[in-house]
Amino acid sequence: VAAPLAFVTDFGSADTYAAALVAACWRVDPGLHAIVGMHGVPPGDVLGGAYHVKALAQALPAGAVMCAVVDPGVGTERGAVAVEAGGIRCVAPDNGLLSYLWSEAELQGRRCVALRTPADASATFHGRDVFAPVAARLAVGGRLDEVGAPSLPPALLDDAFARVDRDVVSGVVCVVDGFGNAITTVRSCDVSGRRVAGAEWDGGATMSVVRTYADITNGSLAILLGSAGHWEVAARSQPAASLGGPGRGDVVRVLLA
Amino acid sequence: VAAPLAFVTDFGSADTYAAALVAACWRVDPGLHAIVGMHGVPPGDVLGGAYHVKALAQALPAGAVMCAVVDPGVGTERGAVAVEAGGIRCVAPDNGLLSYLWSEAELQGRRCVALRTPADASATFHGRDVFAPVAARLAVGGRLDEVGAPSLPPALLDDAFARVDRDVVSGVVCVVDGFGNAITTVRSCDVSGRRVAGAEWDGGATMSVVRTYADITNGSLAILLGSAGHWEVAARSQPAASLGGPGRGDVVRVLLA
Amino acid sequence: VAAPLAFVTDFGSADTYAAALVAACWRVDPGLHAIVGMHGVPPGDVLGGAYHVKALAQALPAGAVMCAVVDPGVGTERGAVAVEAGGIRCVAPDNGLLSYLWSEAELQGRRCVALRTPADASATFHGRDVFAPVAARLAVGGRLDEVGAPSLPPALLDDAFARVDRDVVSGVVCVVDGFGNAITTVRSCDVSGRRVAGAEWDGGATMSVVRTYADITNGSLAILLGSAGHWEVAARSQPAASLGGPGRGDVVRVLLA
Repeated sequence: VAAPLAFVTDFGSADTYAAALVAACWRVDPGLHAIVGMHGVPPGDVLGGAYHVKALAQALPAGAVMCAVVDPGVGTERGAVAVEAGGIRCVAPDNGLLSYLWSEAELQGRRCVALRTPADASATFHGRDVFAPVAARLAVGGRLDEVGAPSLPPALLDDAFARVDRDVVSGVVCVVDGFGNAITTVRSCDVSGRRVAGAEWDGGATMSVVRTYADITNGSLAILLGSAGHWEVAARSQPAASLGGPGRGDVVRVLLA
Repeated sequence: VAAPLAFVTDFGSADTYAAALVAACWRVDPGLHAIVGMHGVPPGDVLGGAYHVKALAQALPAGAVMCAVVDPGVGTERGAVAVEAGGIRCVAPDNGLLSYLWSEAELQGRRCVALRTPADASATFHGRDVFAPVAARLAVGGRLDEVGAPSLPPALLDDAFARVDRDVVSGVVCVVDGFGNAITTVRSCDVSGRRVAGAEWDGGATMSVVRTYADITNGSLAILLGSAGHWEVAARSQPAASLGGPGRGDVVRVLLA
Repeated sequence: VAAPLAFVTDFGSADTYAAALVAACWRVDPGLHAIVGMHGVPPGDVLGGAYHVKALAQALPAGAVMCAVVDPGVGTERGAVAVEAGGIRCVAPDNGLLSYLWSEAELQGRRCVALRTPADASATFHGRDVFAPVAARLAVGGRLDEVGAPSLPPALLDDAFARVDRDVVSGVVCVVDGFGNAITTVRSCDVSGRRVAGAEWDGGATMSVVRTYADITNGSLAILLGSAGHWEVAARSQPAASLGGPGRGDVVRVLLA
């Protein structure tokens, strides 16, 4: 039976690109039915994409296949990889999209292969012509060494990783979700067992820590641990930005007790 | 064979939340392939969600399972339920999301059980950690009494139900759809056999009744019976609001002949 | 085994309409699992829909079924058709949505039948009540002549087809994709073997030709051949419109060498 297959892309919902990925998988095997996609990464936002790859990988069962496409360099000489990490296999351009998936997986069992671009691939849509077909082959039983040659580890993004400086963990907002929560690159593992006492950023007052969204005081910002293990700035029933909270790229400092 | 499974949420398309629900189902059974989702309920809009639960339930075959998540109280003591109503089983927070599904179903065959929150559930994402797994269990053959304990009926929203006063049925706009049609809480059953002569609202002129969108006069608003059995205010090839029509929450009075 | 089934509609993601199409298919056969949808055609934009039908058909395997619904005339006397063209069967209102799919397919093997509207169909949602059920019947093995009666070819849109005048091919922008690329009606087949030297439009300077998005000079517009075989105006990592590029409906002239 085929493995479940999950896409993470910046193709949006206004185009045929996302559906064409699924269609390309059916060209490999029309029996591929366990397919899901998240196509709302902001255009070209590789760091945001890396977060979503991680968040979705956490939810998938072991053995699932992912295909991540945020690919402003499509058609150029940028590399393309398939990795095995944390029990998931994932196909992607080699531009940092796998920063979390790769770096947070146990060393043992991590593998990376380099994909070749078929000669007849278009210059503008490798999602359809390269990545989806390879993901489909992996989902129907293909092995990593059948789709590419052993390679160096994938590229990692510097700014995906928070900086720890004594009692302060400094990260950036990598995703603003649909509720307006500002998810940061500061992870539970960066805090490593210490208690979080609050957070601050250059644009506003110090924020207190809460456990649930409903615990946030109306009209104020707070910080809480989100469902993928990243600390996020949130408001009660409104976007954090509507109360002057940080946006994509802004630095947030998580304060340790 | 597994029952079809349909989600209605406010998770939007800019995040991994919607895809994570499907992933969570695959953790229960990777053979769950008949899954569809509508994730465009406005954030936290329980009444809008209740309408969409009803509209989608009408289209599904008997025996289908639904999972509705519009859940601003996630992580608090708010209840969580699974119901059987109208031939559909549906899992949801107990906050009024099931107002129409429950109240419009025949009394016979209606059942409601209360779900328990697993101890290891996150504080911020019960869709992934509670609701989707239960829905998946129901879809693969689980019985309602296996996922929860018998409970009182689910909560109903007062403002889901129009008020009938002689020749006037007063409701509110519960959903503005993507075409800009303003769907109200006034239902065909509220009109119960009488003829609708028009509609009015505080912000504009009296509207006449039409049968199809193409029957609307250019530049004017009209009221028609929508595909889920609710009366809606619409314009020709443009959003009702662009002609000064009512928005979410505005009162609309349907006039009976 | 059922054929893959793909929807192209203007139903958006804020409503239950798209999910209701899938639900309607499951009423025909709950075993229909290979279903994908693109629901982001701008409301009522038949030409944009025609492009997306073509783009998605190109990616699908032969034998797939499509269902296209951009239907401002729903409930009126406008026709409804099912066609076979280019190895794909597609159900749609007869308003020009199949302009490219039909006209670009080989003559041999093209067929068109007219659908009847069931007496109990709603006046406002033929996607759910007419088109999806017919598409589902075709996907599970139904023949074209079982769902309708032989008919004249489907309607074609005049403005779907570029005008060739010696060294200039004039078309219009039919789609602006989520990256802000302005896709035109000028196709590789309109250029037919000649070299493209550039492009111009009334609102700006002449554009040069590039092969990939990454080849575009920062701050300038360029023209390139997109992944469905249409020429498109693009900028580097930003929407073409943000550099004063053409929008939906604007005329673009592709210059031949």
